[in-house]
Amino acid sequence: MKLGRLNHIGVATPSIEESIAYYRDVMGATKIREPFDLEEQGVKVCFVDTPGDPTESGPSFGTQIELIEPLSDASPIAGFLAKNPAGGQHHLCYEVEDIEEARSWFEEKGKRILGPTRIGAHGTPIFFLHPKDMMGQLTEIMETPKETTHWSN
Amino acid sequence: MKLGRLNHIGVATPSIEESIAYYRDVMGATKIREPFDLEEQGVKVCFVDTPGDPTESGPSFGTQIELIEPLSDASPIAGFLAKNPAGGQHHLCYEVEDIEEARSWFEEKGKRILGPTRIGAHGTPIFFLHPKDMMGQLTEIMETPKETTHWSN
Repeated sequence: MKLGRLNHIGVATPSIEESIAYYRDVMGATKIREPFDLEEQGVKVCFVDTPGDPTESGPSFGTQIELIEPLSDASPIAGFLAKNPAGGQHHLCYEVEDIEEARSWFEEKGKRILGPTRIGAHGTPIFFLHPKDMMGQLTEIMETPKETTHWSN
Repeated sequence: MKLGRLNHIGVATPSIEESIAYYRDVMGATKIREPFDLEEQGVKVCFVDTPGDPTESGPSFGTQIELIEPLSDASPIAGFLAKNPAGGQHHLCYEVEDIEEARSWFEEKGKRILGPTRIGAHGTPIFFLHPKDMMGQLTEIMETPKETTHWSN
């Protein structure tokens, strides 16, 4: 398997509204997308774009920040926020060309995969790997979107 | 202040040697740079490149992973590793065009800056901001390198 783009950094937050104000007013972000519910995963999500290659003037391909707010106390990130009330870095997400190939790759290496492959926030298949097998990092693997139009909407 | 590139994700590790093997053999990274000591900050550092814009075939401008290993028990990351023995996500680093302007910007917003502006791992001025003022994230601000040749060496 070949390492793909670092698609996004997952950042847990007690309030996406507050985080949006923070990224806009403190960090100077200019491209913040519409928040949406990802019911299946028990979270509300919002992507903040960061600039990509400085030599490019087209659509941004910089690593995104994925803000994640729990939809309820049963959300998988409720526990993380209980330990980190202000929020914080939650996971890293790398792209791969073929999700099934990647799944087999990590299985063969004895890495614990958390649940089935499912559709993630970018509409492509994803799975998560156990942080204890990934040098302390909760790691998401996502298939690279086949079209790039999702970046410019 | 305008948000710049997400230059790198700082990842603490008990062993850069072990982390290099992990990124190469498990994550499929193909561009891992030479580790070096950053004595002033009490750490050994190694950058792992991730691919940039998929439409570009030139040098990578993807967000880097900065592996950080303590040089001694007095290292500023020794405490982090005591709490997270396997290592884990430690900080985010954003670029800005002008480090002095950025410092004033955050000062005006009442954000706690940790120590003086100094030269960071990319050879440009940097400073750190307190995670409690930055929605739980230890945040590094670095001035964008004036030349891009550092990416292709």
